[in-house]
Amino acid sequence: MTQDTRTRMIHGTALLVGARGAKSASLRDLAREAGVPLGSTYHYFPEGKQQLVAEAVETVGQRIDRLLDRAAKTPDAALDDFADGWRAVLQATDFRSGCPVLAVALEEDPALRKAANQIFDRWKNSLAHGLVSGGADPKRAPRLARTVVAAIEGAVALCRAEHSYEPLEDVLAELRDMIARARTGDDVRVAQPTS
Amino acid sequence: MTQDTRTRMIHGTALLVGARGAKSASLRDLAREAGVPLGSTYHYFPEGKQQLVAEAVETVGQRIDRLLDRAAKTPDAALDDFADGWRAVLQATDFRSGCPVLAVALEEDPALRKAANQIFDRWKNSLAHGLVSGGADPKRAPRLARTVVAAIEGAVALCRAEHSYEPLEDVLAELRDMIARARTGDDVRVAQPTS
Repeated sequence: MTQDTRTRMIHGTALLVGARGAKSASLRDLAREAGVPLGSTYHYFPEGKQQLVAEAVETVGQRIDRLLDRAAKTPDAALDDFADGWRAVLQATDFRSGCPVLAVALEEDPALRKAANQIFDRWKNSLAHGLVSGGADPKRAPRLARTVVAAIEGAVALCRAEHSYEPLEDVLAELRDMIARARTGDDVRVAQPTS
Repeated sequence: MTQDTRTRMIHGTALLVGARGAKSASLRDLAREAGVPLGSTYHYFPEGKQQLVAEAVETVGQRIDRLLDRAAKTPDAALDDFADGWRAVLQATDFRSGCPVLAVALEEDPALRKAANQIFDRWKNSLAHGLVSGGADPKRAPRLARTVVAAIEGAVALCRAEHSYEPLEDVLAELRDMIARARTGDDVRVAQPTS
């Protein structure tokens, strides 16, 4: 059961940090969330809260990494999987939790912020790689990949705000069009209409 | 000086709430941020923290409303103004603060969350109206407007994470292209390449 308790603590921490950040959550809160006695947490995470939060954030980062690896084959599938991953979190928490990677990136802990930025970089690089494999202009791909990450993160936050999946559905529809155009080479800036 | 102190408190509260949400900030924190004695806060905001935060969020909402009103004339100018507004907040706070409307939308206070959602709705409607005036398909405009709000909010958060304006610049470039295409009627879904 050792692995199970450890996994449960990481999972519960990811959800709680995604909901309200790491700063305001005590180790006691995190243990309670996972239904684990406070004393046990030091057995599994000798360095305490910092270690637990760092592992939870990295676990979520790697889960998304695996989904985005599919981007190398089909960017659309990767986009859908990326969104599905967040839809599952929204559903499991009744819209209370979102992305723990973004949550710690916005707080004041430099080590966690650095780890979060490395995860965002991996996501962007993976998406950009998939976009290029799928036919997108290599010069534009990093910009488009960053836009996908920003728009999905923003959409997940708006879903939490509205208690609705609509923002994510709307953003996905636009991103799919954007990616399809980038892949077919229709990514030349069109002329601005005068207005 | 009455108006001045009141305005300073609202401005300071908007920045502090944009940085770390309303929940963890006490009225004492908010008074200190504005350099105002705690006792004075009840003079200006008799209902206390709830009233101060609500007014700060609404003030930011209305500031963006005014920027987006330009969308009725040129959606590109509105987009740039929207982004400029957030760039100013990032710059003034050395990337520590972002959007206070989103911050309270993610917290547990139902009244503030409702107020935040009403502000998001206004922004979306204003943008959608401008997009339609600019030539976009009225059926698509609400979806595109929501994507703009989500992507900009996500980009502001990523700017805070990375301590860089790059995410906002990248997202803006993609959104400009997206809007230009929507205005010229080039918004028909292109065929997916097989891969």
